[in-house]
Parts: sequence; structure tokens; C-alpha cells
Amino acid sequence: MEHPENNEAYKGLTVNKGIEQPSVVNPYLKLRKKPQRRQYTAAEYVEGIVKGDITVLSQAVTLVESLKPEHQVLAQEVIEKCLPYSGNSVRIGISGVPGAGKSTSIDVFGLHVLQQYGGKLAVLAIDPSSERSKGSILGDKTRMEKLSVHPDSFIRPSPAAGSLGGVARKTRETIILCEAAGFDKIFVETVGVGQSETAVHSMVDFFLLIQLAGTGDELQGIKRGIMEMADGIIINKADGSNVEKAKLAATHFRNALRLFPPAESGWTPEVLTYSGFYGLGIKEIWDMVYRYFDFVRANGYFQYRRNEQAKYWMYETINEHLRDSFYQNPTIAAELPLREQEVLGGLSTSFTAAKKLLDTYFNELKNKA
Amino acid sequence: MEHPENNEAYKGLTVNKGIEQPSVVNPYLKLRKKPQRRQYTAAEYVEGIVKGDITVLSQAVTLVESLKPEHQVLAQEVIEKCLPYSGNSVRIGISGVPGAGKSTSIDVFGLHVLQQYGGKLAVLAIDPSSERSKGSILGDKTRMEKLSVHPDSFIRPSPAAGSLGGVARKTRETIILCEAAGFDKIFVETVGVGQSETAVHSMVDFFLLIQLAGTGDELQGIKRGIMEMADGIIINKADGSNVEKAKLAATHFRNALRLFPPAESGWTPEVLTYSGFYGLGIKEIWDMVYRYFDFVRANGYFQYRRNEQAKYWMYETINEHLRDSFYQNPTIAAELPLREQEVLGGLSTSFTAAKKLLDTYFNELKNKA
Repeated sequence: MEHPENNEAYKGLTVNKGIEQPSVVNPYLKLRKKPQRRQYTAAEYVEGIVKGDITVLSQAVTLVESLKPEHQVLAQEVIEKCLPYSGNSVRIGISGVPGAGKSTSIDVFGLHVLQQYGGKLAVLAIDPSSERSKGSILGDKTRMEKLSVHPDSFIRPSPAAGSLGGVARKTRETIILCEAAGFDKIFVETVGVGQSETAVHSMVDFFLLIQLAGTGDELQGIKRGIMEMADGIIINKADGSNVEKAKLAATHFRNALRLFPPAESGWTPEVLTYSGFYGLGIKEIWDMVYRYFDFVRANGYFQYRRNEQAKYWMYETINEHLRDSFYQNPTIAAELPLREQEVLGGLSTSFTAAKKLLDTYFNELKNKA
Repeated sequence: MEHPENNEAYKGLTVNKGIEQPSVVNPYLKLRKKPQRRQYTAAEYVEGIVKGDITVLSQAVTLVESLKPEHQVLAQEVIEKCLPYSGNSVRIGISGVPGAGKSTSIDVFGLHVLQQYGGKLAVLAIDPSSERSKGSILGDKTRMEKLSVHPDSFIRPSPAAGSLGGVARKTRETIILCEAAGFDKIFVETVGVGQSETAVHSMVDFFLLIQLAGTGDELQGIKRGIMEMADGIIINKADGSNVEKAKLAATHFRNALRLFPPAESGWTPEVLTYSGFYGLGIKEIWDMVYRYFDFVRANGYFQYRRNEQAKYWMYETINEHLRDSFYQNPTIAAELPLREQEVLGGLSTSFTAAKKLLDTYFNELKNKA
């Protein structure tokens, strides 16, 4: 006898059609007009920023970071109108290799300066590598546990797109907005492995380098030239059995720094040890930083450097644009690899190859008119 | 009675007119035709250079250094024709602060490498400061007493005019001519106080830094970043009572170098002491330099770096020309100070000021057509 389930007449496993359920989404929602965020005018942005409205500030920063040309025009207008209210802050660059405990340290440092010196603190970042990971907003904010919920802090991660030059410019412009919003302390964070340090160095008053002790090659991973930019080197994780190692590393760094020529500021970089996790040695670090500010304000270097930085960014913008105009020209982009091969193959001098490309470029510019 | 000299008739103090003398210059000399040096063609220059004719080589270098456009065109043709004969040399950059004994050292080093390794040695220089002193030809040649009269050496001071970029390019092109003329060892000298080190570093295979012991701040006067470019650091004047001090300085430098990240070449820079004046420790230095060459030839870095340098110079020439075209534009040159003042006065952002200048520039380029 065949199994009854194979019989077509058998209905035992059939699911009955249920009763139709109403949609869990309100069907009238579609008909409602989506509440459009009203587009502020430049004056409204500025008004909100100067009042210290964090929401407006955030939106203005988003505008600065936008790649749309119309946003860029509005952003520049806002920044320009904020300029008179800006500049009244101390700007501190903080760098260190991944794993040095940057976020934990910034969390502790931020709380300390807010407690000790009052005011408001903005934490920005330059990290072009986040182009790949599309920013690390959550990462940053959750790692700065206490600071992220502090009423006087504003944490903004690195813009997620663009060249280093572009990202750096946006961070610099964000500084202006934050200062206009009353933030008198600015931290600019960067990962100590790339060219971004030079960019940060060109927008801050003090450059703090976080190091770790006991890896033997202490600067492993830190790009050449970064140590020479530091106004202060601080060695993290000086706690427990690690204290002696950290002290030894500090001595090494002090000796190494002695071999460098004196900085333009007249300031001798100091080397300190601390523990971000246990909150040890934090006061000493910030006493040092503020001692630096007293020193450079007294000798005039503070304002001198800010002026030099403003000029630097004008020239940097010009030079970047000139290069982009050349290298992103489609004819040049097509011709460049050929000329490069000529040079590498010894068929052409570097100068002749460059000359040919330049002639192509300038002729095209003229004929475009 | 009046004094007789006051009498008009008195002639005692009058000088008689002498007899006319013939000119000391041969009066017929003017009539003679000035012997015009015949202008070589590019092919003739190349023929002479490849034969190793020092006179032709000197004249070709003068051509390279000339600022006249017609000379430049001819020079580029000569260089291009020399390219196939070039590249077969070791190029060594030698730097150090004034007073470190660079000339004496190069004199001793040159004699040593010629004696030890044979071949021919060219000593060139990059020193934009000579722009002011209009070259130090006699200074250099007399300080390199033995080398300047050696039959297998060719000493050429820094071109006396132009920007650093221009001077550096000319030195680089002179290297090509020297190599085509059979010089298989090239020293490029530079004063360790400026940007010229970066330029030298971008045209040599090995960068040697001369230091002095016992000034406490050993790197006093050496610009930041230069020590990180060194493939070898040598401490001069390690003689007599100074030997211990020099050894101590060497230890300091070794410790400092350990803090730097490893070089791209995979080579660990060595620190040695020597005495240029007494000729002590010279062999050890050059054993080290040639050990480096063996090392980078084996791991492929030698050729890799030369290719990178050729590309670097093509891009550098392009970028320099783009900048010159902008900043030397008369309209821009007139407008630039105003825009700079706007930025410094907080009336304009760096970006807006740059944008205005760029618009002016590109509009003018188009309207020129």
C-alpha cells in the first residue's frame, strides 16, 4: 500500500490561507509631506554659530565638508562671516601611532582641561585613511566615553572623503567655525603614520606626540620628520611594571631631541611620562602645554606662527589648485605615462619630458577660450 | 713786505708741461679681429664629451648654466644625446655645516677613492648662497689643493645664479655630462644649512653627513630633517685630545639614529669618526660607502631609487614651472600682497583669497590667446 501522503487527495500538510493582516506601517504616512529641513542663509548660520548653537554648528560643518559646489559657495560665505569671531583659542595637535592610546588619552586630557581651565573644547580629526572606512564616527565617539557626553565638548570626526589637502583644509575651516561658536580649546587628532602630521602642524599652536615605551625601536611606525615637529613628547602607559621602561624611553627621547637644532619658537620640547588609563601625570602634561603658551605669547611667536599659517594655507590652496588643473587635465593624464616611460628608458631628460607636457597644457588652456 | 709767492709774477710752483708719452697699449691691437670662439654644434659637444675632453666638458657645463634661451635649447640637445652614455657612476652627496672641514675632507676623500678604486672623479656643488658671493670658484679650488691638480678630477663650483630649483637642476644635468665624459664617481657638495640638502638627496645614491664633536648641541646649525636623510654620519677632527669627544658624539648619534624608523633602502646608517687633516679613518669611511653600494645593488634599491629620482625631477620641473607661471605673472604679482593682507587682517579666508587670485590668473591665460 502506498503512503497516504503521496495521494493527491491528502490535505493533511496543506497550510490554510490566513486572514489578511493590516500593514504595520501607517498607510497614510506616504501621503504626508516629508518635513524638509529649511536651508539656512549664511547670516542665519552665522547667527546660530555665534550664539553657540551646537546643532547649527554641526550643520555648518557638514556644509563645509560637502563636495557640492553650491554648498561650497555658501560654506565660504559662512566661514568668512565667522572670521571676526575666530582666533580666540588654543589649538593643539595630538598625534601618535595606532595603539598608543590616543582616544583614551584625549578623553582624559579633555576632561582635565575643561575642569582646570574651564571654557569649551572641540575635538576634530584629520585622517585621510578614513576615506576607506568612510569615517569612524562611532569608533571615535565611543572611545571618548566621558568627553562625548560632556556638555562643553564637541567631537567631530574627520571628513570622510577627499584628498589629504582637501580634508586638511576642511578641518582648518571647521576650527574657524568652532572658535566662532565659543570653543576656546581645539584638539586636532591625527594618526602618526602619514603626511597628515605636516597638515596638522600647519594649523595648530602646539604639537603633542604620544609615544609608547619598550618596543625597542620606539619610533617604529612613526614617519620620519614627525618627531622634529613635536613641541612635547609624552610616553603613555607609564604604570605598574612599565614605569621604569617608560622613564628609560623618556631619557632616550630627551637625548635624541638634544641632537635636533633649536625650534623657531625658542621652545625646548619636553618629554614626560603618563598613564592615560590610570590618569597619572595628566596635570604635568597640561602644565607644560600652558607653560608653552605663556612662553610663545610673551616672545610674540604665537601670533607670528598664526599669521604664517594663514599665509601658508593661501599659498597651499593656490599650489594645490595649480597642480590639480594640470594633472587632472585629460590630455595630460593620457600623455603623462608615456613621458614617464621616456624618462625611465633614458630616451628623454626629465626636463625635456616636463617641457613637452607643459607646452601641451598651456596650449590647450589658450585654445579653450 | 708781502710774501713773494703771492706775487702774480712768481712761477716757482708751476709745473711744466711734460713731453707726450706713447700709449702703453699697442695702438694696432684695436684693429686686430678678436679671436671668436667657434660655437660648437650639439654633435660636436657630445663627441668631445664622450671622448673625455675636459675643455669641451667645461664649455658644455657653462652652456647648461647659461640663462640665455638659445643656450638652453642647445644644452638640452647635448644632454639628451649624452643620456645613453650616462648613469654609469656612483653619486655621493656630501654635506656639513660651515667649519666642519668639508673641503679638506673632500680633498682627502677624493684622493683616497681615486687611489683605491681608480676611475675619474667629478666634484660638483649646490650652494644657492653663492648667488650673493657670485660663486666661490677660487675658494673651492684652492681649498681642495691636491684634488684640484689631480689629472683624473674635475671640480666645478655651484652655478652662480638662479633659484635653488634651477641651480639643483643644472647640477643634476651636469652630472649627466660628467658621466658621459667617463667620470664614474660624482661628489655633490652642499652646505648643511638649507633646503639644498633635499635637492642633493634627490640626485645622489649615498648621502654623507659630516659632523663635529664637542659643541654640546651637535646639530646646531644643521637644518631639521637633514640627519634623517643621511646614509652615513662621519665625525671629523677625531684626532689628539679630541678623539674621546668624537667617540662620545658618535655614540650619541648612533642612539639618536636608532630612534628613527628604518630607511626605505633597508640600510642602517653608520656613524664613524675620522680626521680629515691627519688622514685618519678615511679607508673605513669608504669601505662603508662601498658596502652600501654592494647592499643596495643586491636588493635592487640602487636602480629603483635612480628611477624614482628621474621621475621626481620631471614632476619637480613641472610643478616649479606651474608655480613660476603663476607667481611671476605681473597681474598676480601686483595683486598678491593685497590678498595676503586681507588674509592676515582676517577680512578673507585663505581659500577665498586663493580663489580670487586663481580666477584672475586663468582668465588672463585664456584672454592671451
